[in-house]
Amino acid sequence: MANFKICYPDWKPEKLKLREALCTLGNGYFATRGAAEESKNDDYNYPGTYLAGGYNRAQSKISDRIIENEDLVNFPNWLYLNFRPEGGDWLNLAHCQVHEYEQNLDLRKGTLHRAFVVEDKQGRRSKIESRRFVSMRDMHNAALEWTLTPQNWSGTIEVASELDGTVINDGVKRYKDLESHHLAPVESKEVKEGGMLLVVETQQSKLVMAQAARTRIYEGGKRVNIKPEIQTLEMAIAQKFRLEVQEGHDVKIEKVIALYTSKDKAITEPSLEACDNIAMAGEFDELLYRHEQAWEKLWKNSDIALFNGDRTQQLLRLHIFHILQTASPNSIGLDVGIPSRGWHGEAYRGHVFWDELFITPFYNLRFPEITRSLLMYRFNRLDKAREAARKEGYKGAMFPWQSGSNGREESQTIHLNPDSGNWIPDNTHLQRHVNAAIAYNIWNYYISTEDQQFLSFHGAEMFLSIASFWASKASYNKKRERFEILQVVGPDEYHTSYPDSDEQGLKNNAYTNIMAAWVLQKALVVLDIIEKSTKQDLLERLEIDDKEIKHWEEVGKKMYVPFLEGNIISQFEGYGDLKEFPWEEYRKKYEDIQRLDRVLESEGDSPNKYKASKQADVLMLFYLFSTQQLKDIFNRLGYDFDENTLRQNVEYYRERTSHGSTLSRLVFSWILSRYDKQESWENFEALLISDFEDIQGGTTPEGIHLGAMAGSLDLIQRCFCGIEVSHEALWIKPMNLKQIDKIKFKIKFRGHWIVLSITKKVLRVSFEEGWSSSVAIGVIDRIYEFKKDEVKEFPLHQ
Amino acid sequence: MANFKICYPDWKPEKLKLREALCTLGNGYFATRGAAEESKNDDYNYPGTYLAGGYNRAQSKISDRIIENEDLVNFPNWLYLNFRPEGGDWLNLAHCQVHEYEQNLDLRKGTLHRAFVVEDKQGRRSKIESRRFVSMRDMHNAALEWTLTPQNWSGTIEVASELDGTVINDGVKRYKDLESHHLAPVESKEVKEGGMLLVVETQQSKLVMAQAARTRIYEGGKRVNIKPEIQTLEMAIAQKFRLEVQEGHDVKIEKVIALYTSKDKAITEPSLEACDNIAMAGEFDELLYRHEQAWEKLWKNSDIALFNGDRTQQLLRLHIFHILQTASPNSIGLDVGIPSRGWHGEAYRGHVFWDELFITPFYNLRFPEITRSLLMYRFNRLDKAREAARKEGYKGAMFPWQSGSNGREESQTIHLNPDSGNWIPDNTHLQRHVNAAIAYNIWNYYISTEDQQFLSFHGAEMFLSIASFWASKASYNKKRERFEILQVVGPDEYHTSYPDSDEQGLKNNAYTNIMAAWVLQKALVVLDIIEKSTKQDLLERLEIDDKEIKHWEEVGKKMYVPFLEGNIISQFEGYGDLKEFPWEEYRKKYEDIQRLDRVLESEGDSPNKYKASKQADVLMLFYLFSTQQLKDIFNRLGYDFDENTLRQNVEYYRERTSHGSTLSRLVFSWILSRYDKQESWENFEALLISDFEDIQGGTTPEGIHLGAMAGSLDLIQRCFCGIEVSHEALWIKPMNLKQIDKIKFKIKFRGHWIVLSITKKVLRVSFEEGWSSSVAIGVIDRIYEFKKDEVKEFPLHQ
Repeated sequence: MANFKICYPDWKPEKLKLREALCTLGNGYFATRGAAEESKNDDYNYPGTYLAGGYNRAQSKISDRIIENEDLVNFPNWLYLNFRPEGGDWLNLAHCQVHEYEQNLDLRKGTLHRAFVVEDKQGRRSKIESRRFVSMRDMHNAALEWTLTPQNWSGTIEVASELDGTVINDGVKRYKDLESHHLAPVESKEVKEGGMLLVVETQQSKLVMAQAARTRIYEGGKRVNIKPEIQTLEMAIAQKFRLEVQEGHDVKIEKVIALYTSKDKAITEPSLEACDNIAMAGEFDELLYRHEQAWEKLWKNSDIALFNGDRTQQLLRLHIFHILQTASPNSIGLDVGIPSRGWHGEAYRGHVFWDELFITPFYNLRFPEITRSLLMYRFNRLDKAREAARKEGYKGAMFPWQSGSNGREESQTIHLNPDSGNWIPDNTHLQRHVNAAIAYNIWNYYISTEDQQFLSFHGAEMFLSIASFWASKASYNKKRERFEILQVVGPDEYHTSYPDSDEQGLKNNAYTNIMAAWVLQKALVVLDIIEKSTKQDLLERLEIDDKEIKHWEEVGKKMYVPFLEGNIISQFEGYGDLKEFPWEEYRKKYEDIQRLDRVLESEGDSPNKYKASKQADVLMLFYLFSTQQLKDIFNRLGYDFDENTLRQNVEYYRERTSHGSTLSRLVFSWILSRYDKQESWENFEALLISDFEDIQGGTTPEGIHLGAMAGSLDLIQRCFCGIEVSHEALWIKPMNLKQIDKIKFKIKFRGHWIVLSITKKVLRVSFEEGWSSSVAIGVIDRIYEFKKDEVKEFPLHQ
Repeated sequence: MANFKICYPDWKPEKLKLREALCTLGNGYFATRGAAEESKNDDYNYPGTYLAGGYNRAQSKISDRIIENEDLVNFPNWLYLNFRPEGGDWLNLAHCQVHEYEQNLDLRKGTLHRAFVVEDKQGRRSKIESRRFVSMRDMHNAALEWTLTPQNWSGTIEVASELDGTVINDGVKRYKDLESHHLAPVESKEVKEGGMLLVVETQQSKLVMAQAARTRIYEGGKRVNIKPEIQTLEMAIAQKFRLEVQEGHDVKIEKVIALYTSKDKAITEPSLEACDNIAMAGEFDELLYRHEQAWEKLWKNSDIALFNGDRTQQLLRLHIFHILQTASPNSIGLDVGIPSRGWHGEAYRGHVFWDELFITPFYNLRFPEITRSLLMYRFNRLDKAREAARKEGYKGAMFPWQSGSNGREESQTIHLNPDSGNWIPDNTHLQRHVNAAIAYNIWNYYISTEDQQFLSFHGAEMFLSIASFWASKASYNKKRERFEILQVVGPDEYHTSYPDSDEQGLKNNAYTNIMAAWVLQKALVVLDIIEKSTKQDLLERLEIDDKEIKHWEEVGKKMYVPFLEGNIISQFEGYGDLKEFPWEEYRKKYEDIQRLDRVLESEGDSPNKYKASKQADVLMLFYLFSTQQLKDIFNRLGYDFDENTLRQNVEYYRERTSHGSTLSRLVFSWILSRYDKQESWENFEALLISDFEDIQGGTTPEGIHLGAMAGSLDLIQRCFCGIEVSHEALWIKPMNLKQIDKIKFKIKFRGHWIVLSITKKVLRVSFEEGWSSSVAIGVIDRIYEFKKDEVKEFPLHQ
């Protein structure tokens, strides 16, 4: 367990114990290349092996591994350093005594520190202090520095610096039958300026990754030139330095590495660039300074300062830290999406699901260019989505539930239950709702930025193609005089088919139907706002005629929504016929029933039979839309929606949810904030500790839960502070939460930075940093015009 | 020579004879990959070999080449088809009789047609009609269709369809000593659905290119399934089909190919994608329909209709055609720049110079997203430009004159004079003015689009880095009390050093100094318009403090400009001391003195000694800025600038220019339009035929002159129609040119499409296609507010 130290001016210096998995370092570029690249024969090429942390096993063939202790596993292969006193063993924490072990993650500076004293069999004690980072400024670089002090001995030591390509992916136990070796050798050699180079290639996707490393040694502050002995293997290379050390005197060893891949922009070829890079790169301290400066600027625009005297603040910052490590300004233009577990671990093998839905609200209001780049990732795969739609007999574009490298569907059709050891059929690829999520993201990016150019060149084409898909997916039920969407699965993965039915999927999942209706309603708005010329071109190209648009209008108005009693929306058609689940019985029987699906399957039963949800997907609607927006959607559909709808639905579904997804807490916290603030806060706290406490009992080491992390930030900004972007203004409608004394953060709205400070009594809006034009900001129920440099205060809750 | 046929409703059906080089097909993606990728040992990897035309030599090892005739050379390797009657020779136009040869390039549809009758030694006559295109819609595809009719014989024939990787680059004679082989074999094999695959890799840059081809044969409209014989070599693969043909009966052979490279987005790996693509791709006609539709939409937004009853219209459209083939919506995000000869030929080996300066004005007002992508190409190479500045002791970023793949300087330090056979020292890399051109492009993109997001995330960083470079490059001359820029070369490449001086470059090139001053003046404006937060971050990151900004202001005010007499600007300091050139003598002595540098060097002389310019670079200023803008720049510098300045400078330099660059005509036409419309028009006509007539006597086959082509369009829009974009409005100030009856075109301004129609009497502005907001348009001297759907007419020249 690491401590994580934070030392920002108004950051509390309190230390929290942190799991190893959360000490992973990244910069938005490292580890993104080649992810989600799988061939059809399960040759998983996810190079999570290149993370600067995580649980990947390095199996050094040259010098023993330093790490056997599970707690200390996140020494990545390319920052591998080791030493041994002459005649002794290579340092191995599992086989020597370790004293005074301390590990700190500095969130503010993006660095990981370790300090420990080891004692070998001969009783020689050595202190090692290490600092490492993956540069946020120089995206191809990472660096490690060791300060080694012999405490009770002098003599000759050997230092090994290695690049190791033999790493494998075995961080997720249930994938043990899948291929774990993903790298093939290309080249390993010594290069100019005392560097070394290792080039490997992913097995299936043929992505070439070149790593070069430069190791320098300093004694008494002066660099000592030691010619290393080189050892090369096909998949590894090491330099070994021999030097004299003296009791009580420091030796500093610094290793700087550069990573380039064949997909990088602005390169000639990766190994040449990697070698040039380490020949030119500054010393550790110079690189560190630039890295820290880059983080300082990121924090300035990303921090959410929350003055409430407990660890909430620190966990929020931990979340911001990991989100920025996953997608940062370094990610722009890389053609990468957002995998559901970030780049931190191997779970889901780097596939891209719907998680942008949770993370883009954070970026839209700070780094919209990152959202634009994430949307371009989808745009680049639009042809594949068209192909998928065509193959299933639909129009438009159907994006896959689990998107692989080229945008194909990578969802499994069977999956392993680790509780029972059974492989069971998997219908989860029928989660067509991912298409509504993408449309929702396009719209929200546009409305936050008014980036007309993006909309007319890329966004509208995607939006209309998705609308076209939904319209063709919907079928008319004459008896009901309503449109229906059949054979789908909603976000709640406990319900994927009807009990004892061979049919795949479910009928009329309410979440899916309403989202599809929203897409079709909004598509008409998109058509209305883009220029005529683009509109005509698009409609012709996408083969959408007036008749089809009329059809969209029709489907958008007459989509069927199933109800149970009163205003309680039925999760899907037939949900009411399912059995009530004996929650009490199972809570007694099992310690943890969050993953009820696995529990039931082990018993030969299935959650499909019960009114029991992993997450209540009906409630997602109340998270995505404001009450007013939902009223409008429902009214257009000709259904009632009154003040009680929300509460009735929450009450109904909260009793029937196992919270098997970390997202479930997010949704409940959001909705409950409107009428049960205490319980809302409790859910928010549960959400905050999802990864910190690894509440799912073991999923965090497989990778962080990015949606939940981002959701916790979105809860602060959109829910607790009531930020809502509409065509005419940015709205701010803060809630009064007794747990928060003050919140302060900056957001970017249509090119303008706005600083918000909210206490229990006053909302302070300062428009000090905008472009010269003015901006409309709505507070509670009125719109105000802000001019540059203007600051206004509004009394709250009086 | 091909005819080029154009058949747009208001396009004249007149046919013009067209050089082969101008029949090259492209789509903005094809041929862009791997360009400008050279190692330091002259292993030129410019895969111009993959152009769908051009003069690259295919050397088929499998079946004889069809082409030996220089006029017919543009059969690209991957669209290679051939046939032979049983027992006969493979068709080879050099060794058989050719009757009725006709070739048409259809600009509107982007297709190339050929029809000819060949007669072999046995007297067998066969008619071949071919159609080919490189798809503008499906960017990875190209296709070729042959209709083969035996006219006086029946029997068995063999058809060969080949993918040939043995192509070399030998299209430019003076490069004969450079490496011409750039491809290494990876794989060649038969693949699913009757396809074949050839994978090659560039020698130095290791770019993998996978090509798959599918060949189908139809008789009497029905597909016939013939199992081909396969022949594979290391670098080539062919399928041979045997079939019976009958006198007078057509056989159709269609070949569809797909190209993918290892740098492509949204792929798993290139060969898998290429094979999947041809297995899924539609028939020739389907692909063609999509391709034609894409061109129709491009033309709708790009055409400049000019009603003046001569070939001017056709040549303008030829230029639009080639510009759109070089950079199209398919280019967006590819990380490619604009090489000075497009992708059409091998001259300059794909290096990127300053040509965006001429092409972005066209894109800014139609497809700004393409400009954005071109600017991102520079942004991605900003670190390399920083490194270059640092190495020379400057601050900021110094972009190279000839930019290679990773942004390094690729200018030669010696070059070959083909007239004398001598290798002569080359100082042209001192053309630092490319840095002003990039800044100018950023500003003009911003002012046309108001894309604040681009400016704050990317544009401002580049702009300020360039400003920082100029400020550090400028040195203070105490005697003059002015700043100077030393050791540079201006756009006029005839002057690269002082006669009999060992010093590299020139002092105070007026164009460079004034552009640098403009950059520094405008940098202060950029700092003023971006948000405070971004400004602070940038200044800190780029290490620019208040003192430096004060210095920019100072340098921007006190830059030295050399003058000759009165208001005549001296091209550089000391220009006045050079000898007058005996123009008359040389015009008598040599037929063509456009490339005076080569002529003089052959005589042991040098243009450095004379007042003789390839292009008069002082005059570039009058092209880039309006008179008012120049007045402002000069006034801020404390120099006079009056109404006569322009005329005096033009008169002085026109007598001293050889027009050795096609850009020279552009600049003269532009400037003369202000007071000598007849001569302006003559220069415009000379510009229009630069490539059409190959006026430089042989450079067109080495690649088109993209800057000149784009310049001819810019002359119409910015010069003749007086379009000028300012902060407050889009200005339109049309000239009255007797040669033009009517001009009609569309432009996009800040997201709004505006249709302009200009006759001798009336300017009609129609704002039918904009977003819902209104737009300010200035006509002549007043600004009008246009609301959506508004149309206004203004009387002209009365």
